[in-house]
Amino acid sequence: VSRPVLTLLTDFGPDAAAAICRGVIVGIAPDAQIIDISHSVAKYEVRDGAFLLWCALPWMPVGVHVAVVDPGVGTDRRPIAIRVGRGDILLGPDNGLLVPAARRLGGVHEARELTERGLWLDRVSGTFHGRDIFSPVAAHLATGTPFESVGPVVSPDDLVDLVIPSPSVRDGGLDTSVVYVDSFGNARLAGEASDLEAAVGTLEPGRDLVLRIAGDGDASALELAATWARTFGEVPAGSTLLYEDSFGRLALADNQGDIARRVGLRRDRPLRIEPGPH
Amino acid sequence: VSRPVLTLLTDFGPDAAAAICRGVIVGIAPDAQIIDISHSVAKYEVRDGAFLLWCALPWMPVGVHVAVVDPGVGTDRRPIAIRVGRGDILLGPDNGLLVPAARRLGGVHEARELTERGLWLDRVSGTFHGRDIFSPVAAHLATGTPFESVGPVVSPDDLVDLVIPSPSVRDGGLDTSVVYVDSFGNARLAGEASDLEAAVGTLEPGRDLVLRIAGDGDASALELAATWARTFGEVPAGSTLLYEDSFGRLALADNQGDIARRVGLRRDRPLRIEPGPH
Amino acid sequence: VSRPVLTLLTDFGPDAAAAICRGVIVGIAPDAQIIDISHSVAKYEVRDGAFLLWCALPWMPVGVHVAVVDPGVGTDRRPIAIRVGRGDILLGPDNGLLVPAARRLGGVHEARELTERGLWLDRVSGTFHGRDIFSPVAAHLATGTPFESVGPVVSPDDLVDLVIPSPSVRDGGLDTSVVYVDSFGNARLAGEASDLEAAVGTLEPGRDLVLRIAGDGDASALELAATWARTFGEVPAGSTLLYEDSFGRLALADNQGDIARRVGLRRDRPLRIEPGPH
Repeated sequence: VSRPVLTLLTDFGPDAAAAICRGVIVGIAPDAQIIDISHSVAKYEVRDGAFLLWCALPWMPVGVHVAVVDPGVGTDRRPIAIRVGRGDILLGPDNGLLVPAARRLGGVHEARELTERGLWLDRVSGTFHGRDIFSPVAAHLATGTPFESVGPVVSPDDLVDLVIPSPSVRDGGLDTSVVYVDSFGNARLAGEASDLEAAVGTLEPGRDLVLRIAGDGDASALELAATWARTFGEVPAGSTLLYEDSFGRLALADNQGDIARRVGLRRDRPLRIEPGPH
Repeated sequence: VSRPVLTLLTDFGPDAAAAICRGVIVGIAPDAQIIDISHSVAKYEVRDGAFLLWCALPWMPVGVHVAVVDPGVGTDRRPIAIRVGRGDILLGPDNGLLVPAARRLGGVHEARELTERGLWLDRVSGTFHGRDIFSPVAAHLATGTPFESVGPVVSPDDLVDLVIPSPSVRDGGLDTSVVYVDSFGNARLAGEASDLEAAVGTLEPGRDLVLRIAGDGDASALELAATWARTFGEVPAGSTLLYEDSFGRLALADNQGDIARRVGLRRDRPLRIEPGPH
Repeated sequence: VSRPVLTLLTDFGPDAAAAICRGVIVGIAPDAQIIDISHSVAKYEVRDGAFLLWCALPWMPVGVHVAVVDPGVGTDRRPIAIRVGRGDILLGPDNGLLVPAARRLGGVHEARELTERGLWLDRVSGTFHGRDIFSPVAAHLATGTPFESVGPVVSPDDLVDLVIPSPSVRDGGLDTSVVYVDSFGNARLAGEASDLEAAVGTLEPGRDLVLRIAGDGDASALELAATWARTFGEVPAGSTLLYEDSFGRLALADNQGDIARRVGLRRDRPLRIEPGPH
């Protein structure tokens, strides 16, 4: 029997909370191969967590995945588990966090509310369900507890949904926005290369494009030249490129720079991509 | 035979030092299930390390636990191992770091000074005993080396002690202080809910309380309204709550905010909790 | 059969990218014991990555080591694997990152370019070879795929080299420089204790030395007194020491302080060490 794979994604940061979840899991599933996807999700930012889970889970082995970005912990938001088409089980709060990744892994096959207290820790706090509910249920599932035993079925239509923004083609350009800023300062955008091609025509490496970035609080609107490229090193250091990132999304970067800091990009800032002058 | 559990807590930060400890452990105990509790303890802050260890170890499986926050590394402070009532072994410097957690795991059953060089790495540096002494001794213990072989017994009374601050009831209020600020900016306080009830009477969710926070350097004294709640979402976003945290302690938070940054709370800042106006 | 050891070092930061590499590895090598050396290497700083790898690998078990600090990802820089004298295999971009560690592990025994696409993921992006090439090849090697199968031999002389700076003795002092600033703010310097002894004579604990630190941008030149010590606690808190660090290098620290922040030290700042007044 191979070792069960469990993954963890939270906004718990560098304190001991994430490790406590690991400890609970190992206490129940001693052979677990645990992968920490990230514990640095921006606090309370459910969509950032959903985005990282969407990015990461396709590259994880089939397993049990716990995600906790949970500003409603202890309120009446439901703790849920979702079995997806690929065979994984995702656990977390019913606040949309799990849904984009579930869609990408073959869709929601079955969802259940976590109500079976026999699978939880004996004492449940009001503020740390990652430790008290999600981790122990996940570890039990990883060691063979049937999915059906976690609690009653929830209709997929009743799950709180969360949609990663989409772009739209308009007047020969693409209206998009910043979906996520990564630790390099690269901006992952709404949409894919095919969306941009629908707006501006064929994208060949080296093609000039123009970015029109809307104002955002103190940051004024601005216009930037960018080059379509397959990778960073195809433009000079410090120059701006648009590219298809490694998850198939449109993305924006400065080669060896941090465009988000330079230009003041952050989540949901609108921007428009148009054909360049050449 | 199940895989031995080892945990690590240090102030080593994001450099390679914590990983080097892992490498040494895996070299001796290839099957180890290693849990990194935290390597982001504030530099040299023995009490923060002791607090996180106190929080985390009860949720870890019985195992061997290495903790290194060690401003006295290489001086005559002793390297020690403590066997606790629950059966775990804790290793680290004799500076108080291990003691609160040991008390919580059934108390010090036996303490020994690490003197047996045959269990250390061949060469011992003056500045990295986490790598050269604590990790290899821990790994040997985890793979069956008897506890007695690490070195001579130390009387528990001779260990350097460290006490997490306590609150006191006075004039119908509770004098407490900030014990630890977590990465959400929530402040863990001295004392438990029962201490606050001894001061102000029964705590029902929704009860109004008043915080009087002492001045602290540039930060002036201030008074804040807070609500007793079971969890964050019981007060509006941005509002202040007092609650029993998931470790049974009194704690203070802004729902979906960072009260420590907003108000300027840090370790050991005194504050007083009194009944509210209603 | 014991579990294969794989290690990871990248500049990927706290997003999900490092975890995705782990996921790919575990998908191919389910029993892997994976050690994350660091994912906090300063972005694009190949030399910092090379230095941390040089520090860490000697303390890792013999295994397969993936390192990715790769500003040229997707360009014509080669992806390579190096088998070293100790028996490890190192994988990463051919930009010098692997070379200092390889020299320290017995030297380059054989180098090969990664060209065998059957060992890669099916789809290879232009910007994430850590996921698409290095991790899967490493996992296959860790589970028994012969080294020869990764691609053709590259002459060691054709590898991009990278040399960690050396000091030089001049006029009774040592001209050195900052090689790396660790998370404590301690500065690891070019050279070893023997180099300093060649310049200033025998180093006994307590010996006074003088540091002359060159100007650096806004930071003006300055002169500092320092004491040669075996460990931090041999000088008063806040005082400056020079010492042999746990990797055998010359290093500079404030006891329980952060000299890099206090004085403004950063990578490659030149400094000179001379005998002190006593």
